[in-house]
Amino acid sequence: MAKTDILIIGGGPAGVVAAVTARKNNPSKKIALVRETEKAVIPCGIPYIFNRLDSAEKNIMPDNGLEANKIDILIDKAVKIDKTAKTVDLKSGKNISYDKLILAVGSKPITIPIDGIDKKGVWRVEKDLEYLKKLRQEVLKSKNIVILGGGFIGVEIAEELININGLNISLVEKLDNCLITTLDKEFAVEAEEKLKQKGVKLYTNCSVNQITGKNRVEYVKLDNGKTIPADIVILAIGARPNIDLTKEPGIKLGDYNGIRVDEYMRTNVPDIFAIGDCAETRDFFTGKHIPIMLASTATTKARIVAANLYQLNDLRETKGTLSSFSTCIDGLVLGGTGITENRAKKEGFDILLGTSQCPNHHPGTLPNTGSIKVKLIFSKTSKALLGAQISGPESISEMINILALAIQNELTVYDFQTMQFSTHPLLTTAPTVYPLITAAQSALAKLD
Amino acid sequence: MAKTDILIIGGGPAGVVAAVTARKNNPSKKIALVRETEKAVIPCGIPYIFNRLDSAEKNIMPDNGLEANKIDILIDKAVKIDKTAKTVDLKSGKNISYDKLILAVGSKPITIPIDGIDKKGVWRVEKDLEYLKKLRQEVLKSKNIVILGGGFIGVEIAEELININGLNISLVEKLDNCLITTLDKEFAVEAEEKLKQKGVKLYTNCSVNQITGKNRVEYVKLDNGKTIPADIVILAIGARPNIDLTKEPGIKLGDYNGIRVDEYMRTNVPDIFAIGDCAETRDFFTGKHIPIMLASTATTKARIVAANLYQLNDLRETKGTLSSFSTCIDGLVLGGTGITENRAKKEGFDILLGTSQCPNHHPGTLPNTGSIKVKLIFSKTSKALLGAQISGPESISEMINILALAIQNELTVYDFQTMQFSTHPLLTTAPTVYPLITAAQSALAKLD
Repeated sequence: MAKTDILIIGGGPAGVVAAVTARKNNPSKKIALVRETEKAVIPCGIPYIFNRLDSAEKNIMPDNGLEANKIDILIDKAVKIDKTAKTVDLKSGKNISYDKLILAVGSKPITIPIDGIDKKGVWRVEKDLEYLKKLRQEVLKSKNIVILGGGFIGVEIAEELININGLNISLVEKLDNCLITTLDKEFAVEAEEKLKQKGVKLYTNCSVNQITGKNRVEYVKLDNGKTIPADIVILAIGARPNIDLTKEPGIKLGDYNGIRVDEYMRTNVPDIFAIGDCAETRDFFTGKHIPIMLASTATTKARIVAANLYQLNDLRETKGTLSSFSTCIDGLVLGGTGITENRAKKEGFDILLGTSQCPNHHPGTLPNTGSIKVKLIFSKTSKALLGAQISGPESISEMINILALAIQNELTVYDFQTMQFSTHPLLTTAPTVYPLITAAQSALAKLD
Repeated sequence: MAKTDILIIGGGPAGVVAAVTARKNNPSKKIALVRETEKAVIPCGIPYIFNRLDSAEKNIMPDNGLEANKIDILIDKAVKIDKTAKTVDLKSGKNISYDKLILAVGSKPITIPIDGIDKKGVWRVEKDLEYLKKLRQEVLKSKNIVILGGGFIGVEIAEELININGLNISLVEKLDNCLITTLDKEFAVEAEEKLKQKGVKLYTNCSVNQITGKNRVEYVKLDNGKTIPADIVILAIGARPNIDLTKEPGIKLGDYNGIRVDEYMRTNVPDIFAIGDCAETRDFFTGKHIPIMLASTATTKARIVAANLYQLNDLRETKGTLSSFSTCIDGLVLGGTGITENRAKKEGFDILLGTSQCPNHHPGTLPNTGSIKVKLIFSKTSKALLGAQISGPESISEMINILALAIQNELTVYDFQTMQFSTHPLLTTAPTVYPLITAAQSALAKLD
């Protein structure tokens, strides 16, 4: 039997960061990582394998970080955990003992129980290189593509595919708007406008009733009676935690069937931890468990577990996730962190809104000047920042991280008044109208 | 005699922000702003009037913010303050009384006492539209341009002019490297490499002995014996506070001859305040006064004064400036905040350094992928972040502001381990190697 000190199951972002960070904290331990495939796919890069990358093989997570940190990589599938013997059985027939076991087994794409869902030509977004290589080939041979689900992945795949000559792209979303679970309507609409301008056919507020076709998919039938021709259907309707290994060792599950973990990513079974998409994610504001699966959140969990495997070293509160994100649609960047206005109202927060909009260069007469739009959501009582959304150019992707840090540090609307920042004509808004400050000022003005 | 409640002298970024913010806090007061010119130039935009903007007139600060906030604009020059009568005499012969007076009169370009400095063809960087229009015309008719001073303005003008066909650009810097008072050497060298690649001739560690020519400038003679042909010489060697109005009312000056102000921008004379470049700037870490003149810093001072004119409303500490900045050289963005390694050593801080470098997209195989380089400077004892420098793409301009907020909130190297952030394949580094975290980890590793 092979022996290791720290065993990580799963080679996605959470697994890799847990391994590398565990090495920094435990220079002399044996650390092994088990993953099912020879090469690990970069999850967030999947939408871009069709056009911006000219092959799926270019969307591979390099192993150099693991190798430099002397992590043993085992290409195998974990099939059973023996919590008493502290061993894991592998599909190859081998087994391996552990001192600390970290489950980073990720998630599986959700499917929907409709007629025709198993037809040839219906694909999911699997984090599997061989599967994605075939999907890419099929997409490039096709004409009509229907994407089901207008979350990040669906929207990003639609935006990628519409840039390929000759493809007709339809996007079907059950809710009133694309991205509406993560953005408020005024921002979601900006994304939709961009998609429509590019030629994506949007079917919002629509469900799929049936997928039809003789030998393979030919049409998608919507609940509004509309029929869309389809050579390929891509399901991008979300994922659920992978809990295959939890039953035998009696690892408890929580809300949304993620693996229940405490502040330090410990499961109920001693010496077994869970991180990334397979583990529950706690919301920053309510402490509720929420079905958020972001690579950045996964890596944060990984850094926490790696610091606390043998003793609790990391006693600062981690509180929960802000679900910070950014996405890019034909040059329009949308970012969000913390709570949306929609969700604040559903949760019952009494809120104070601040907004602003200004040119993203100064003077605004500079070439390629666009616009930045900011929305800040404060607690009306404590004045603490609860959430933010921004749209604009590339730099929005880091501007939203300023606000994530502000929320983590419990900054209030007053703190924005003397916030220090840098500006530059070619890169940012003018210092006179720096939009995080002017948005906060517009919130303050409502208090008078 | 005209009467106003709040009188602001100066129409630059500090004056404008003070006026607009004072309006928000004082809806019913009369507010007037006096400036010398019909149109106000955007200071940071000056380097870009030569090429990116196709006229100097496009680099104008619009008056719509002032007008929307019912600020009276007087085009006139303040010549004398009577602190007892609380009036200001104007060049036109008019005068105006005030209740609160804010000096936002900016700075004046420094010149150097060398032979030939007054020759025709030697220009300064004046914030004056008519002067800049003439400078632009002259530059576009010339062949050989010599810029004296390798700070931000000098470097940015060199980068702008080298893009104009047929111009030879030389840049002379007294110190060992361009930008070396604000960046550590490894970042300053990146800037220099870009300038050299574009064709700018760099003369570092060089002083100018003499400017020669018959009727107008023809040559610049350096202390190393070298002679550079010059049709135009542009002085970009810094600025000093404008203190023209201070003598008669007995307004006290401080270090570097800026107007001495307290935490709330109050001078020693009751009801007279000073902000922007004409006022002293205090350093965040040492409390020392430092000769930093940045538009972002100027607007921060303006927001503070506007909140505290009639009573002290803004009792949070403002502590001092972080001197945050970003600049852009042929697509390379450099940003900094807080203290440099150089300055930390001079001031006597015991420091802990963290560095990292990684691709700015993920996967790194995406088109147009560059690199991000981060340096974090912590206090070895308290572990607090003292400073940061970053180089990379456009988004660096806001990434540096994350670190400015971290310093303002006294974050330590430990806080970075569980910092939350968003990432996106097309926009940012991978979440597995987010460079603010990995740089902090590299600092922590040195502690073991």
